Amino acid sequence: MTTIYSLRVPQKGANKMKSIALDQVTITDKFWGYYNDLVHNTIIPYQYESLNDRVPNVEPSYAIHNLKVAAGAAEGSFGGFVFQDSDLAKWLEAAGYSLSQRPNPALEKQADEIIAYMAKAQQPDGYLNTYYILNDLENRFTNLRECHELYCLGHLIEAAVAYYEATRKREFLDVVRKYADLANSLFGPEEGKQKGCPGHQEIELALVKLYDATGERKYLDLAKFFLDTRGTEPNFFLEEYEKRGGASLWDNGKRKPDLRYCQAHMPVRSQKEAAGHAVRAVYMYTGMAMTAERTGDASLKEACETLWDNIVEKQMYITGGIGQTAHGEAFTFEYDLPNDTIYSETCAAIGLIFFSYSMLMMNKNAKYADVIEKVLYNTVLAGIARDGKHFFYVNPLEVWPDASEKNPTRAHVKPRRPGWFPCACCPPNIARLLASLGKYIYTQEEDVIFTHLFIGGEAGFAVSGGRVTLTQDTMYPADGTVTIGARADADFTLALRLPAWCAAPEVSADGGQCDVSLAKDGYLYIKLTPGEHTVRLNLPMEVKLYRADTRVRANAGKAALCRGPLVYCLEQRDNGENLSACAIKADLSARVAPHEDIVKIYAAGRRDVDSNGGLYSPNSENTKDTELVFVPYFYWGNRSEGEMAVWIRKY
Amino acid sequence: MTTIYSLRVPQKGANKMKSIALDQVTITDKFWGYYNDLVHNTIIPYQYESLNDRVPNVEPSYAIHNLKVAAGAAEGSFGGFVFQDSDLAKWLEAAGYSLSQRPNPALEKQADEIIAYMAKAQQPDGYLNTYYILNDLENRFTNLRECHELYCLGHLIEAAVAYYEATRKREFLDVVRKYADLANSLFGPEEGKQKGCPGHQEIELALVKLYDATGERKYLDLAKFFLDTRGTEPNFFLEEYEKRGGASLWDNGKRKPDLRYCQAHMPVRSQKEAAGHAVRAVYMYTGMAMTAERTGDASLKEACETLWDNIVEKQMYITGGIGQTAHGEAFTFEYDLPNDTIYSETCAAIGLIFFSYSMLMMNKNAKYADVIEKVLYNTVLAGIARDGKHFFYVNPLEVWPDASEKNPTRAHVKPRRPGWFPCACCPPNIARLLASLGKYIYTQEEDVIFTHLFIGGEAGFAVSGGRVTLTQDTMYPADGTVTIGARADADFTLALRLPAWCAAPEVSADGGQCDVSLAKDGYLYIKLTPGEHTVRLNLPMEVKLYRADTRVRANAGKAALCRGPLVYCLEQRDNGENLSACAIKADLSARVAPHEDIVKIYAAGRRDVDSNGGLYSPNSENTKDTELVFVPYFYWGNRSEGEMAVWIRKY
Repeated sequence: MTTIYSLRVPQKGANKMKSIALDQVTITDKFWGYYNDLVHNTIIPYQYESLNDRVPNVEPSYAIHNLKVAAGAAEGSFGGFVFQDSDLAKWLEAAGYSLSQRPNPALEKQADEIIAYMAKAQQPDGYLNTYYILNDLENRFTNLRECHELYCLGHLIEAAVAYYEATRKREFLDVVRKYADLANSLFGPEEGKQKGCPGHQEIELALVKLYDATGERKYLDLAKFFLDTRGTEPNFFLEEYEKRGGASLWDNGKRKPDLRYCQAHMPVRSQKEAAGHAVRAVYMYTGMAMTAERTGDASLKEACETLWDNIVEKQMYITGGIGQTAHGEAFTFEYDLPNDTIYSETCAAIGLIFFSYSMLMMNKNAKYADVIEKVLYNTVLAGIARDGKHFFYVNPLEVWPDASEKNPTRAHVKPRRPGWFPCACCPPNIARLLASLGKYIYTQEEDVIFTHLFIGGEAGFAVSGGRVTLTQDTMYPADGTVTIGARADADFTLALRLPAWCAAPEVSADGGQCDVSLAKDGYLYIKLTPGEHTVRLNLPMEVKLYRADTRVRANAGKAALCRGPLVYCLEQRDNGENLSACAIKADLSARVAPHEDIVKIYAAGRRDVDSNGGLYSPNSENTKDTELVFVPYFYWGNRSEGEMAVWIRKY
Repeated sequence: MTTIYSLRVPQKGANKMKSIALDQVTITDKFWGYYNDLVHNTIIPYQYESLNDRVPNVEPSYAIHNLKVAAGAAEGSFGGFVFQDSDLAKWLEAAGYSLSQRPNPALEKQADEIIAYMAKAQQPDGYLNTYYILNDLENRFTNLRECHELYCLGHLIEAAVAYYEATRKREFLDVVRKYADLANSLFGPEEGKQKGCPGHQEIELALVKLYDATGERKYLDLAKFFLDTRGTEPNFFLEEYEKRGGASLWDNGKRKPDLRYCQAHMPVRSQKEAAGHAVRAVYMYTGMAMTAERTGDASLKEACETLWDNIVEKQMYITGGIGQTAHGEAFTFEYDLPNDTIYSETCAAIGLIFFSYSMLMMNKNAKYADVIEKVLYNTVLAGIARDGKHFFYVNPLEVWPDASEKNPTRAHVKPRRPGWFPCACCPPNIARLLASLGKYIYTQEEDVIFTHLFIGGEAGFAVSGGRVTLTQDTMYPADGTVTIGARADADFTLALRLPAWCAAPEVSADGGQCDVSLAKDGYLYIKLTPGEHTVRLNLPMEVKLYRADTRVRANAGKAALCRGPLVYCLEQRDNGENLSACAIKADLSARVAPHEDIVKIYAAGRRDVDSNGGLYSPNSENTKDTELVFVPYFYWGNRSEGEMAVWIRKY
């Protein structure tokens, strides 16, 4: 093979916004520096141990075991779910991102060993899925709806691209291209190929990344084909199901296709409401947006805009969580946002970041970055413990541990982060997101550098006339002051996001006040000349009570306390048992106080008091004043197990 | 067979409270007269058609079909659930109660035909269960935990006793005794018998009824054995499961025993919290109470008292509904009373009436009758449409039809009463309860006549010195005035229940005011001499707001509007869409207005109004005043489909 992989293929579409490379940026501030160290030093090593089944008292992964057995390097049988390979792929992707930023020979050796097993396990024609290799090779690609082969291939592609970008080693990308070429030979619109698509979307966005990395149009075309064929008549999944004689992998072979669950209930361009399994949905929408951006497909772009707006305006929790029900880990319907029976999977939140980021690459509108920030600071960070070794799959907005234990309707809501899961999609997803955080801080369109997130560190950019170095100095999100230093040897424009949560942002450039009313779609464009500059952004972080649209039944009469990008919550540890008895003064009286790694908020409230009237009594209300103690939502469950609530009654 | 069935066996226990016979009492008032006519004229005939699979557009029952096939009178195979026989038995029981009060040759002929099929279907040794007769006779009694044979036998016994009491025809009772004797030969503490007990309790209470009807101690002993053996080690259900090689009737043969689900997690006397499948629980507790009453078993009685208090003080909805989760149709835990994901099965409510009634027969405490009244006027009546032909299985306290349709967590909550169910336990249960309503109005202990319910009509009693006739004249529950007329030719005592919901009841006897503070455990004892008397009871029906114990998280900050025994609710039909936006003034301002068959309540309230701030906004509260329109909870869903809510935010 002599292909030259040309990263960052010039794009043909109308949009010229580009991602930055991870080695362009460093992260050094207090808040994210902690997580940055955590992902490189703790999360990635811990997950390697988990994937090797060496962490005591947690669910085994089997992922590396399966690969070794498939490579003939170990004895045994397949363990775990049909999609177990994907956990390892996501870890490799995270490792790639890590290696882009911090050389680490030990980590690189671990990754290379795994990649070598993959090369050995790969079948002569390129096939590489340990479940089928070990169990049922003859029936590969006979159950796309349930068996996740294309999903796992997608994750392999993402990992290989990341690993190539980091190391410039070709082996992994060669292995994966061979497998992708096999898929391309089997699926597509051409005569003799299957008109199939994956039951769990993921490969679409991955193929676009492979196109970006290789410049090979066939991968973009295959992504587009998977999207175009989905939900069309005759429905591939129903035909495939009949062809298997109605056999299913689940429920003892009795599960019938639910097309809405996997977003195949109508063509993707016709979909107006986010529906079905939330992770599949947002991965698909991301693939749609990335494909639309590369191809200039207006109808696909429009569908993405409609779906993004539907999620954010009607189906998203205030924490950025999505997926309202555990049944099918799915969206339900507009304004149905229960806090206690919620799903809000960590992976879905991460997928919403991917989707929002891919929209941001098409539309220079800060609303997409606002959502990235909301999801990142709240649901994603809630998904991982401060120790980097425990993870939430489900991110509730209201927790009553007794109910989680004793009411099966709420059994999926865990009051404590486990160390691993039988279905461990979320932990390595967090790892790859945190390891690639730098990518979300800036993007660049020609000589305009967009600053989306306020994260301290340094970044370097090439502009048409030379180079620009930007530094950010900030205590964000503890404080709303951001000092941006620029050293440039050419003209450039700094496009500064003014977050929607901030009512009165103040910006100065080299001491001169900027007119923030000139901001367009949430970005203030500041032209800067060669030399050194200081841009100061002040985002006053008032403590605010938010209300939900009245159609959100679950939040009627309630408020959520927020400060800056952070949603806050009450915890039993600070406020005693029974948070439902607490109410907050609608005429807010609050003070903030730094506490260890966070800023606590104290607010005037009251507590209902019983009057011994029995379960139901005509007694009048009885309350006592109290000071409520709030902590950031992402922080909950780190100190002890107990009740938690985001939405609090107001009075 | 020459057995003489001696109804009303003199009881040996310490208690002498007796039930009255249904032919002792007539029901003629406006409120219950309607339902009384409905059960005789509509409900029982409609259900006969349903059981014959002749009602269009509803689920077929198969119950009579199965029996005919088992009797060799029709061709075909078994249809429906393993416990389908019980629906027919409950209908026969209702028919018996009906015939006790209103001779009806056509109905009696229908019943006799069914009974004749039963006699034909009965196996030589007495066995009579159509599922096993038609499917798998060899394996009868090999899966007591799941296959409901003893449950169905229990319902046959209850039906046969009721039918015998009504008609004095012996055939049905002979058939059933033969089957009960077979069970008695197979199960018991003696050598060579199985130490088994039913997976779905019911036969225990039925065997006590059979004991009462026949005087045969063996039936009481068998009931006691089933209770005594339950939950002991080694656990029968686990042994039975192993003996079947782990085979299950459900989930493709994979369901493992859940002992708590069927109250076999510990010996019944050790159980302190109502747990597991709610119908099984209250049927068992009823059997325990009835057995304790007949045997004078103090520890069994104490367990009943503990369990009843646990339900009523910690696990009962304000409507008298029980069973907080659809998962296992079960209790969850104390103070966990969600309104939206609730189960509150109609059958469980009826079972709570049975349990409360059996407690009332032991303990002369009006708290038991208070609960009977609460359950009856609210959940039981909500379980049936005003037309007598549509039924709720689940009785929610909060309904959002969109959520029922689109959020699977709430799919079990129906906004509209169906005409029948694949599992149709509830409709014939309502039929038998309504047809036996007279039994709950009065009980008698020697010369003391207890008036538990306020239902207009006439009743006759034998006391030691002669006869007493009581009439009740009332518009209850529309109005709290009850006039009781007595004609007696002997001394007797009228024990009048003073309902706990009434803060200031007034009672006069022959014009003279009675001192209600002399009431003992909720009953005011009024000694009356031979002659005619008029006792007037005035129960002022204030409209009241109730609050829940603060530990009931779901009702924090909310109130339920009640008047007399009736719980009220808001319906979309009267109040527009989105009831969660409504709040009621805590300083209640309400007026009542009769409307067709009910009394509506109008109360001052307000409604949240949106200010177009998007899904989440820092905007302040915006409300408009409104008059809220409440209707009795039992009445909901009779006029149109829409939202409903019992617990309303207060301000």
